[in-house]
Amino acid sequence: MTATLSTPTLVDLARQTRQASRALALLPAADRQAALEAVAQSLSDRAAAIVAANQADCEAAQSEGISAALYGRLKLDAVKLAGAIAGVRDLAKLPDPLGQRQIHRQLDEGLVLERVTCPLGVLGVIFEARPDAVVQIASLAIASGNGVILKGGKEAVRSCTALVEAIHAGLATTAVDPAAVRLLTTREETLELLRLDGYVDLIVPRGSNEFVQFVQNNTRIPVLGHADGICHLYVDAAADVAQAVAIAVDAKTQYPSACNAIETVLIHREIAPQALPAIAQALVAKGVELRGDPASCALLDGVCPTIAATDQDWATEYSDLIVAIKVVESIDQAIAHITTYGSGHTEAIVTEDRATADRFLAEVDAAGVYHNCSTRFADGFRYGFGAEVGISTHRLPPRGPVGLEGLVTYKYRLTGQGHIAATYAGEDAKPFNHRDL
Amino acid sequence: MTATLSTPTLVDLARQTRQASRALALLPAADRQAALEAVAQSLSDRAAAIVAANQADCEAAQSEGISAALYGRLKLDAVKLAGAIAGVRDLAKLPDPLGQRQIHRQLDEGLVLERVTCPLGVLGVIFEARPDAVVQIASLAIASGNGVILKGGKEAVRSCTALVEAIHAGLATTAVDPAAVRLLTTREETLELLRLDGYVDLIVPRGSNEFVQFVQNNTRIPVLGHADGICHLYVDAAADVAQAVAIAVDAKTQYPSACNAIETVLIHREIAPQALPAIAQALVAKGVELRGDPASCALLDGVCPTIAATDQDWATEYSDLIVAIKVVESIDQAIAHITTYGSGHTEAIVTEDRATADRFLAEVDAAGVYHNCSTRFADGFRYGFGAEVGISTHRLPPRGPVGLEGLVTYKYRLTGQGHIAATYAGEDAKPFNHRDL
Repeated sequence: MTATLSTPTLVDLARQTRQASRALALLPAADRQAALEAVAQSLSDRAAAIVAANQADCEAAQSEGISAALYGRLKLDAVKLAGAIAGVRDLAKLPDPLGQRQIHRQLDEGLVLERVTCPLGVLGVIFEARPDAVVQIASLAIASGNGVILKGGKEAVRSCTALVEAIHAGLATTAVDPAAVRLLTTREETLELLRLDGYVDLIVPRGSNEFVQFVQNNTRIPVLGHADGICHLYVDAAADVAQAVAIAVDAKTQYPSACNAIETVLIHREIAPQALPAIAQALVAKGVELRGDPASCALLDGVCPTIAATDQDWATEYSDLIVAIKVVESIDQAIAHITTYGSGHTEAIVTEDRATADRFLAEVDAAGVYHNCSTRFADGFRYGFGAEVGISTHRLPPRGPVGLEGLVTYKYRLTGQGHIAATYAGEDAKPFNHRDL
Repeated sequence: MTATLSTPTLVDLARQTRQASRALALLPAADRQAALEAVAQSLSDRAAAIVAANQADCEAAQSEGISAALYGRLKLDAVKLAGAIAGVRDLAKLPDPLGQRQIHRQLDEGLVLERVTCPLGVLGVIFEARPDAVVQIASLAIASGNGVILKGGKEAVRSCTALVEAIHAGLATTAVDPAAVRLLTTREETLELLRLDGYVDLIVPRGSNEFVQFVQNNTRIPVLGHADGICHLYVDAAADVAQAVAIAVDAKTQYPSACNAIETVLIHREIAPQALPAIAQALVAKGVELRGDPASCALLDGVCPTIAATDQDWATEYSDLIVAIKVVESIDQAIAHITTYGSGHTEAIVTEDRATADRFLAEVDAAGVYHNCSTRFADGFRYGFGAEVGISTHRLPPRGPVGLEGLVTYKYRLTGQGHIAATYAGEDAKPFNHRDL
């Protein structure tokens, strides 16, 4: 890093991060793994100071009347920190995402094409509350050879600062320039970050739907993420009712504010009289409010309190203990409803009929299509990616939970012996001789 | 297709194309291959009518004083058409890009994750002049299971209409709904097309830099493509001079208006006195205008007419028989120049020194990095992709020439036996048992 007399601007800092990321991109896997180990060790050595900084954040937040949910996400105790540190070490054990040869092809004698994975460059990650995200994102960036500019929420500023200081101290002993990981702490810097095309290659916003939409509307940098997570559970005519009940309860209540929680249960007309009361009672027992279409309300009359759903309900991500319920005539109607209202995140069917399941998995257009399991499994850690920077609902890759592999791109390397295109053009054109090696 | 009494709007047409694309996405490879064969046959059967329609376009264009270059691209004679038809049949022989299982992993006993490739949905492709692009793009779309809305230039409207009629006639005999391929012909429809988020998943603009920038600034749909193609040839100190001469001539003059033609030659100080006159004379013999930095001008004094380059030259895509030349002190300076001025398209080095070549290939950040061959090889057909919809200079995939594989995405399929996330959370959490199958 160059010493300057005046305060460096965000552009200066971003330029340093890009420069550091270029060097990081060229390091062999062993150096990146060693850097992750040093980061883990440094976080471990400074655990007491980090927990103390978080304690100060938590006390300040409480005195400002933070909600219980937000407090839970802000809190970083020794156990949670130890878990995050273990995650860094786990990441170092995953296969290296860089330098993977995806294509190796002779185009003609002596003219050889390779497609090889390489880092994206610099990531800009904006997140709220959860300070452990710093550890997860910084280690994903290092492991994938990318620089990262982190912008945490102001309520977690002491925690994030302590964590990044520990990460920098760890990196200082390794081949990775600490400038590859950068922390921003003020709100004004968020807008500046969004304007750093040329320095930042991918923005990952983690926060409320409104915030993600704000980011999407205020940057020319590609944005990875999703605004809405409207997920459905379709209980087919051939469902195992006990499974349907357990999955509905898990998918709605295990963590209702998660993007992979369901908002709507669709249930086939034939099984509804038998299955819907059981599902509804189990949900109500967990404190869930029900909003039903007329058919559902009729079936639940005298069973559970059920509010009449409006059209708005089908399009709402409650992120809360509320579920919309609709009786459908067929799997076609279920798929049509999901096509209209789903956000392309995760959609599940419960059925014992393999052919029906196959139709659902093929025809539903979402990042995740699930059969006989809870939508809550949509997560990079659960998928075995070690961690994730977020879940993408874009159609173009990376789609779904984005871990190491989603943070790399590729380039084509072509090696010849003086080959020119004119040889392969015109009247006496030599034909190409494509052959995978 | 539904019959309507009033003229259908573009949204109606796009909705039909999306519906047709959903059905197309579910067809097995054999049905898509049969559709390509039917399209090829129909184009062949109607070849005379297509060539006649093109003849009419060409005559109209000539009477309006079209440039010779544009006329060459507009012209579709029987030979060029036969080549395009052969391309359709070749595409049918390539491996199916759909249904490829990229991940197959047990998360726990009975809980199995798959990542499987699937189509993007509907492509919107806007192109100028070249009517054979209709054949190439429509067949790429069908082969990759995508619907496509094509918007051709008005100078090619008769040709494009005849081609799409032939494609529709071919598809009518197959499992593919002809509505999957749609042609727009008026300029006003271009802007409407750019506003069809929700119906179109990817816009591919093919045309001038200004046009691509216009598209990028006027749509919320992801855009695949590139505005600039500023490619460099770096002649290293250890270059084989004869190779450097041949590659410079090919990369500059074989098709100067192509995006993969070079705009700048960088040459190492040590080899410049010997190599630069040879390169310059060969380029001038092909009618190329030279613009040099002071060192180049000094070396070429008395050898070739050379104009003094300005800073603007390093940032210009001439698309013409003009080349900028700069003498550099080192490979580092060459890479720094490319980092500053390159557009991330294709960059080449000529050197006999393997270590220097490896540095260049690793450190230069571009879709294509080439050693001892012409930048003109950056092309989907030459890479063995059968064809391409365009070349992307975005860092995120798809990067470089985009063929079948770049037109598909993937989804995650998770199949369980009633698995719920609560089992794997909390105090008695069951661990995941990730194992690739």
